Amino acid sequence: VKTRLFYLHAIIGKMPKIGILGGGQLGRMLLQAAANYPVQTYVLENDPECPAAHLCHEFYRGDIRNFDDVYRFGKQLDGITIEIESVNVEALEKLESEGVKIFPKPSALRIIRDKILQKQFYKENDIPSAAFRITEKRDDLKKFSDFLPAVHKLASGGYDGRGVQLLEGDKDIHLGFDMPSVLEKKVDIHKEISQIVAINGAGQTALYPPVEMIFNPILNQLDYQLSPAEIPQQTTWRIEAIAMKVVKDLKTPGIFAVEFFIDRNGDVLVNETAPRVHNSGHHTIEANFSSQFDMLWRIMLGYPLGNPKHIVHAAIVNLIGCDGYSGEAKYEGIDDILKMENVFLHLYGKKETRPGRKMGHATILSPEKSDLVFKAKSIKQKLRITSFQPQTTV
Amino acid sequence: VKTRLFYLHAIIGKMPKIGILGGGQLGRMLLQAAANYPVQTYVLENDPECPAAHLCHEFYRGDIRNFDDVYRFGKQLDGITIEIESVNVEALEKLESEGVKIFPKPSALRIIRDKILQKQFYKENDIPSAAFRITEKRDDLKKFSDFLPAVHKLASGGYDGRGVQLLEGDKDIHLGFDMPSVLEKKVDIHKEISQIVAINGAGQTALYPPVEMIFNPILNQLDYQLSPAEIPQQTTWRIEAIAMKVVKDLKTPGIFAVEFFIDRNGDVLVNETAPRVHNSGHHTIEANFSSQFDMLWRIMLGYPLGNPKHIVHAAIVNLIGCDGYSGEAKYEGIDDILKMENVFLHLYGKKETRPGRKMGHATILSPEKSDLVFKAKSIKQKLRITSFQPQTTV
Repeated sequence: VKTRLFYLHAIIGKMPKIGILGGGQLGRMLLQAAANYPVQTYVLENDPECPAAHLCHEFYRGDIRNFDDVYRFGKQLDGITIEIESVNVEALEKLESEGVKIFPKPSALRIIRDKILQKQFYKENDIPSAAFRITEKRDDLKKFSDFLPAVHKLASGGYDGRGVQLLEGDKDIHLGFDMPSVLEKKVDIHKEISQIVAINGAGQTALYPPVEMIFNPILNQLDYQLSPAEIPQQTTWRIEAIAMKVVKDLKTPGIFAVEFFIDRNGDVLVNETAPRVHNSGHHTIEANFSSQFDMLWRIMLGYPLGNPKHIVHAAIVNLIGCDGYSGEAKYEGIDDILKMENVFLHLYGKKETRPGRKMGHATILSPEKSDLVFKAKSIKQKLRITSFQPQTTV
Repeated sequence: VKTRLFYLHAIIGKMPKIGILGGGQLGRMLLQAAANYPVQTYVLENDPECPAAHLCHEFYRGDIRNFDDVYRFGKQLDGITIEIESVNVEALEKLESEGVKIFPKPSALRIIRDKILQKQFYKENDIPSAAFRITEKRDDLKKFSDFLPAVHKLASGGYDGRGVQLLEGDKDIHLGFDMPSVLEKKVDIHKEISQIVAINGAGQTALYPPVEMIFNPILNQLDYQLSPAEIPQQTTWRIEAIAMKVVKDLKTPGIFAVEFFIDRNGDVLVNETAPRVHNSGHHTIEANFSSQFDMLWRIMLGYPLGNPKHIVHAAIVNLIGCDGYSGEAKYEGIDDILKMENVFLHLYGKKETRPGRKMGHATILSPEKSDLVFKAKSIKQKLRITSFQPQTTV
């Protein structure tokens, strides 16, 4: 007799048990990579239809920001990693004190998830980063009139461009945040670079080739990313050295994306650091020997680090929900994309699309930069993510 | 409140629903690849702790050889594929008549899963293959004394070397099978090659570079596999042409491994065909643009075919359970393997090891054949899969 069965892995055996806080696309790709290793996987997430839910051994419904949810989820596990910084750090600290390995350590998470502490960390450790002032409330901005133009960033709660406001001059001060924030001197940006670094429990590191993030100057949106970045060798060395220092000073094993500005003078400044697998590393699945996801499993399972080198040059395009459409996702143009030679599609299986929501990405492999850029631009035109519901007005 | 939840994807939405008969390593790797596409995945398998169980949206416990189990599993689906040929073809035929797409079609499965029909198919379609005779019972072998040396193969039920018996001469006839079988003229083998071919619903095909299977002459076991095979260009062309003919004559979309002998005269003969993803194609995950698993999803979801070309040369080593050990699997030497540059480990997460059981594979990437062979041999020495239980006598 056939039974529909969702099996409790009651007899877990001797495989290590690793949990992920959050069940989005980063968790999904981590779990795709996990299936190469003997590991039992766990996900904590509110939405049981999230991209990672069906790819783990055990899915727990719960709030990653809630102490009890995180603590109860974690206390059965050998290790935990995160998809997003806004998790309950107190629960992770308690779990760590009880022997659960956390990647990254809660001490590093505390620094990074608060933009004020993050900037102070750079300053204290002589890590080059744009000059900054701290504001507790909007009125504080008036004191820093001479410091403008600058970028006002909420200390916490910002994500993917939210909680960031450019203040060109006094006339913009009313746009600033009335909560603890950091005011960063505006950088005259030449290029934006992401440097992914892996560091294991023994302090050994692996550096991926730096990635160039190319923005659309009109929409002020990430257009596509190129790996490796086209930058002078000397700049690469500087970026690598600074990224290594950031990671070593954070004193935790894990995987990190250190984001940089290169300014018009060729100076290199840290913008911010993500203490986890990152959007700017998705190409490593196809383009590098050991992907960022494979690398994090190696670190968490105590295996030797993999080879971060690239096999071929690559570009990444984010596939985001079209403006004007919300509701159950509908994909137009998949065939056009998959017809292109050496283009790899990753759709995250999110049921609902929203304007600007990251619904997937495409990776392009080619030794020719012109081919990468041409295909990146074609993909952005051809793949449209809309909804089955009629178009809403915007 | 946190709840432990194994979610029924009740609202399946508009994603196609594809099921896999069997939940072993082939299903596992298919599901790793499926997570790149918008598809709802289903697995039917008796063992709820099988390698693929936790990676699908819905796992059904049942017998893939049982009509009712397969039919009930399949009637909710848009498409079905197989991990193994020994499935209930009658149920698949009924499902096909009701509109479910089967990869490969049951008509092709009927030919391939019966070695007598398979040999007759080659003969009728002028596909070069070793001469053969049909035997219904062991006694029939006496009539074919002049035909020896030959290989006696059970018409059905053989798998991974079981159901195959070399008969050098009359003295070996008692070793033959007393059930319907095929007696194949012994081939003086120079090399064994696997040619993986993809064919979609529109009849378009994609050919992977042929793979060379290197056997240990003493153990008569597969030692490692090399991609691409080292064979003359003319032989490659001949293999490609014959493999294309096999697949076109089977008249079904799907992915196929056509296995060949090259004899001492350089002649090319089809050994047998597997109508599914195959052990000889596992390197395509890392070494080729579109892996065999990605390719099958493209075919099942009606997308354009991917690029089968290799990016780099590769070797595959199967990781099998050590002699003398049964029970919960224990891995020795993982670190030694993962320390080697550009070696990719795939452990299938099987709870129990047995002597000779396929527990995983390793893929090696390198432009140098000597490096591939050296690492393949090192991996076989260094990775040992034993059990936690004391060694049993063998």
